[in-house]
Amino acid sequence: MKALVYRGPGFKALEDRPKPALQGPDDAIVKITKTTICGTDLHILKGDVPSCTPGRILGHEGVGIVDSVGLACSVFKPGDHVLISCISSCGKCDYCRRGMYSHCRSGGWVLGNTIDGTQAEYVRIPHADTSLYHLPEGVDEEALVMLSDILPTGFECGVLNGKIEGPGKTVAIVGAGPIGLATLLTAQFFSPSRIIMIDLDDNRLDVSRRFGATDVINSGKEDAMAKVMALTGGTGVDTAVEAVGIPATFELCQSLVAAGGTIANVGVHGCKAALHLERLWSHNISITTRLVDTVSTPLLLKAVASSKVDPGSLITHRFRLDRILDAYDTFGRAAETRALKVIISPD
Amino acid sequence: MKALVYRGPGFKALEDRPKPALQGPDDAIVKITKTTICGTDLHILKGDVPSCTPGRILGHEGVGIVDSVGLACSVFKPGDHVLISCISSCGKCDYCRRGMYSHCRSGGWVLGNTIDGTQAEYVRIPHADTSLYHLPEGVDEEALVMLSDILPTGFECGVLNGKIEGPGKTVAIVGAGPIGLATLLTAQFFSPSRIIMIDLDDNRLDVSRRFGATDVINSGKEDAMAKVMALTGGTGVDTAVEAVGIPATFELCQSLVAAGGTIANVGVHGCKAALHLERLWSHNISITTRLVDTVSTPLLLKAVASSKVDPGSLITHRFRLDRILDAYDTFGRAAETRALKVIISPD
Amino acid sequence: MKALVYRGPGFKALEDRPKPALQGPDDAIVKITKTTICGTDLHILKGDVPSCTPGRILGHEGVGIVDSVGLACSVFKPGDHVLISCISSCGKCDYCRRGMYSHCRSGGWVLGNTIDGTQAEYVRIPHADTSLYHLPEGVDEEALVMLSDILPTGFECGVLNGKIEGPGKTVAIVGAGPIGLATLLTAQFFSPSRIIMIDLDDNRLDVSRRFGATDVINSGKEDAMAKVMALTGGTGVDTAVEAVGIPATFELCQSLVAAGGTIANVGVHGCKAALHLERLWSHNISITTRLVDTVSTPLLLKAVASSKVDPGSLITHRFRLDRILDAYDTFGRAAETRALKVIISPD
Amino acid sequence: MKALVYRGPGFKALEDRPKPALQGPDDAIVKITKTTICGTDLHILKGDVPSCTPGRILGHEGVGIVDSVGLACSVFKPGDHVLISCISSCGKCDYCRRGMYSHCRSGGWVLGNTIDGTQAEYVRIPHADTSLYHLPEGVDEEALVMLSDILPTGFECGVLNGKIEGPGKTVAIVGAGPIGLATLLTAQFFSPSRIIMIDLDDNRLDVSRRFGATDVINSGKEDAMAKVMALTGGTGVDTAVEAVGIPATFELCQSLVAAGGTIANVGVHGCKAALHLERLWSHNISITTRLVDTVSTPLLLKAVASSKVDPGSLITHRFRLDRILDAYDTFGRAAETRALKVIISPD
Repeated sequence: MKALVYRGPGFKALEDRPKPALQGPDDAIVKITKTTICGTDLHILKGDVPSCTPGRILGHEGVGIVDSVGLACSVFKPGDHVLISCISSCGKCDYCRRGMYSHCRSGGWVLGNTIDGTQAEYVRIPHADTSLYHLPEGVDEEALVMLSDILPTGFECGVLNGKIEGPGKTVAIVGAGPIGLATLLTAQFFSPSRIIMIDLDDNRLDVSRRFGATDVINSGKEDAMAKVMALTGGTGVDTAVEAVGIPATFELCQSLVAAGGTIANVGVHGCKAALHLERLWSHNISITTRLVDTVSTPLLLKAVASSKVDPGSLITHRFRLDRILDAYDTFGRAAETRALKVIISPD
Repeated sequence: MKALVYRGPGFKALEDRPKPALQGPDDAIVKITKTTICGTDLHILKGDVPSCTPGRILGHEGVGIVDSVGLACSVFKPGDHVLISCISSCGKCDYCRRGMYSHCRSGGWVLGNTIDGTQAEYVRIPHADTSLYHLPEGVDEEALVMLSDILPTGFECGVLNGKIEGPGKTVAIVGAGPIGLATLLTAQFFSPSRIIMIDLDDNRLDVSRRFGATDVINSGKEDAMAKVMALTGGTGVDTAVEAVGIPATFELCQSLVAAGGTIANVGVHGCKAALHLERLWSHNISITTRLVDTVSTPLLLKAVASSKVDPGSLITHRFRLDRILDAYDTFGRAAETRALKVIISPD
Repeated sequence: MKALVYRGPGFKALEDRPKPALQGPDDAIVKITKTTICGTDLHILKGDVPSCTPGRILGHEGVGIVDSVGLACSVFKPGDHVLISCISSCGKCDYCRRGMYSHCRSGGWVLGNTIDGTQAEYVRIPHADTSLYHLPEGVDEEALVMLSDILPTGFECGVLNGKIEGPGKTVAIVGAGPIGLATLLTAQFFSPSRIIMIDLDDNRLDVSRRFGATDVINSGKEDAMAKVMALTGGTGVDTAVEAVGIPATFELCQSLVAAGGTIANVGVHGCKAALHLERLWSHNISITTRLVDTVSTPLLLKAVASSKVDPGSLITHRFRLDRILDAYDTFGRAAETRALKVIISPD
Repeated sequence: MKALVYRGPGFKALEDRPKPALQGPDDAIVKITKTTICGTDLHILKGDVPSCTPGRILGHEGVGIVDSVGLACSVFKPGDHVLISCISSCGKCDYCRRGMYSHCRSGGWVLGNTIDGTQAEYVRIPHADTSLYHLPEGVDEEALVMLSDILPTGFECGVLNGKIEGPGKTVAIVGAGPIGLATLLTAQFFSPSRIIMIDLDDNRLDVSRRFGATDVINSGKEDAMAKVMALTGGTGVDTAVEAVGIPATFELCQSLVAAGGTIANVGVHGCKAALHLERLWSHNISITTRLVDTVSTPLLLKAVASSKVDPGSLITHRFRLDRILDAYDTFGRAAETRALKVIISPD
């Protein structure tokens, strides 16, 4: 089968690989019908993720059709139309029983990282019964690819961790890339009174407005802190979401958050940041971090099925699997191509 | 001043009464600009509320202009445009400090009950600093009258108590009167996937659809339980809201609620109801009761100001204070007149 | 093997039965080392539990040694010393993923009910990986039998559902049988300021005092409501726990609970009860029901291991399996024998 | 009257000052019967608190007798025996209505900071009705001085913010000074399975053991991180409490906390600290900060009255007000004098 393989920092190749086989009793083999590329895949290609070694098939998102299942699988059978979670969860360990699937003792983020992933014709899914989801009737398959990772990440790490839990809240989201936009989309489940998007890219800010932002700030052209303070009567926002992953944006969030508020970190950070405890110690704030657990996937499936959110709006480009190198190129030059999420179909 | 006075069971009169005067240091006198009639006022007139004695000016809802304030008032001053809460809260007692303003040791629901109310040209508001709210800029005054009682009641007793706290939830609201509709409006803050309204009146069910119900059931013509089960895959709803106040509808809620769900009682009950513990003891359900605390009023003001809800949609009729007897007649014959909330203006 | 078999209403027998065999890939066979009798077993014997049919081996509590496991089992292996949960949980269905193991779509309370149970030399445990627990080092095996059912029931249905979640709370527990006492023991994790035990049996009230009750009331000799009001300054208790299962005690709880409080139902009810909504509708109370989920078992194992609770104190009698009919007799005449929990050992 | 007055960095004096007078209608004058010294007073004397200017009477803790009250006071009257909260709360502003008294728009921490404090014979308390508390019957007055600040600080900022909310939790408290010990005392309300105290002072670690620590670590002699990992099976603690206020201890907490855990900052910080997001971004942790709100004071009063905690155990020395300079000396040389809290009595 065709598969996109990591070949060490800076290198990737579309290769022919054998179709994966069942290894354990709770495995399933899934024939991929749609997959996509994540910003994390670009990090791997830069060599930033040491757990992912050369030879690995990339990709941790997708939908497909179950091809075969192990003896222990009771929830799925061949032919089932399924969503693949980016997080594999055994459902048995202490972390899984607490809903922290990201820290599953025999799973977590393994797909396209420590085991072969979804940018291929077939993929082996361990712990299939607790890592796949039946697709709801009548929902667009492409839109559901967004539920593998990006929508639950925005929702769990940004919205739930950020306690954007009701009307009347004010929110600032720093970073209007796919993950910031997923946060923006899912924040609206809770009817906040104001959602301010902050980015350097005017196109993404335009998209943000279309997706429901009440205000946008180009922090390359305006003083983001001053404008947020003006928009919030000088108090700052109830929730500041960090969706970039660098010290400067994390520090900006510390300037934007109101006393009693929350900073929800969504970004993947490569280095430490300064925490201004000399000011914040008395401000009654919370800072949260999280690798998505995908514990909210069933709820998000219902939200999509009841038209409360349209994740398909994040899709900007479509490619066939044999053109996946072009897909990477388009996704990698997002500022020029205006790519958000790209859909890749094996055929 | 003109005032609508309770004259004993079955009797009311529009009378001339002296303008109220400040009595305690935390009192304010408010000139009423808009008020309304509540179903509770009809209960009083039937003689169902023994705490309310003949001679009492009725009414516990309204907006107005502060006329004068006592020495202890620091938040409001004459000329301020204010919302009057149906609940007076001292802000000092144990219940107020816990947010249970409805049980304030020197307040609670006193207006139009144990002290003179708002269906008059002026009203005395005790504990003014903690029982009035500044009106937000640019919001329609009439719409805000709905925030005195009905919107916080639907939101606190129905939505918050009912744990309708996120997307993907299924909700049934039994009773599509003003309070059921207020629950319907405010439930949508949290993007439930399904809201089923149940009533006997087709007009109110039509209104429910316009207000966002996904499904409606005329329980006089259809088997409500069977239809709810069909709509929910046989499991019942996550939340059943009782918004009528009689045993039959409370028992219906017990039939509709899924295992793990919540029955939120909003209705005012005059007699006991049967609780089917022989079935429910093992169903992991919660039943909640509540007299509105109006602790959510600041949040609801923000939600209205940010256009997340339009409480003005509940208003069907308008009267001048000198025609308040007509207003009562119209409100009292709601099935015929299709009245939901009526606005009364002194001038 | 020897097993205690239900033979229809009023009849039970100690019989020879074949040792159970693995049926599914996630089964385990456990050699019982200690088991016990539950009040529910007595209900079955009265014919009150139609799901349990003649021929069934009774018992849903116990500890033992894993004898064999199915192919899908990865957490347990032969020789492991394990606690058996009274609730079997697949870990995969929607209810299990929400922590509502009691409503597991292929489990729940099945042991000694719809499949053969633990009052035998061996038992087959379905969904073994998610229904058994490793025993902590150095903890008395007999004490841990209390963690199969009674301690999590008191803790989840009484303490957690009852929101006895911090210091300063006042609690009344109606019923000082084993389950009321388990609630009393686990309520003390949260340092309530007052725990009032109410029962008709002076011996059980004496036990209650030894177990940490601050006050006891013999409701056959004293006016329980009057005394609770006196003990709480006239407001009633924050939490009333119903641990009997009859209408009279459930109604008593409605008289004892303070405004803003919670009634946690633990008792198994055979008929409906009156709910006094004419009084309670405005009292801001919650009523909860629950079949134990045993979701708290890992936490309770830690609490026992760190000596925060001594469940062994509930054990009053010990029998060998071949004397289990005597054990039933002793447990069934608890008022005379002062039995709380009886331990049964196969050898 | 005699009063301890701040005279600029490094200087303080016991002076004669006029007895304070009522200024606003919600003021009370309280005759101090017991007061104490806080670590914050030492910070002021070092010049670290610019809001506190020379001439200020220090002190924000104490109990006393109400001497006189303003016209708006309805809860307290002359002769009442009261606890003074270190936080003054108006009870009316948005922050107070949310329970964030520390950020009260006309209060917060003002006593002994921006208005004259309690280290004197009399003190003026603004917003008296919502900033004083009646003393429970039969509780030692000296012990209750600990409820002005230190006990609610440990409880709110350490225990509640740290989510030490139930049995089975593991906790590390970095810093065994008075505030760390107050956290240790109040953490035990929730029966954690392990509380590890970390400090450099063996005496304070001995005190910690007496106060209920399950383990102690002298981080000057042992590798604290290695030992905590050994004590927690390599996972770290559920909650790490920072009770020192310097970057090194805050960074230590980041090393000690388990995935899914919480770092609760209690310490007062004078400079920023490094936050290791490169490691923590995926660890699902929360970091909280808080200036005590004293919202838990009613609960703590009940806990003391029901003997669930003995705050008097923190008291090591006693002085008369005319010897307050000696008290400061003793408290300031705590390592030598083994002082924890010192009680100062005007007569």
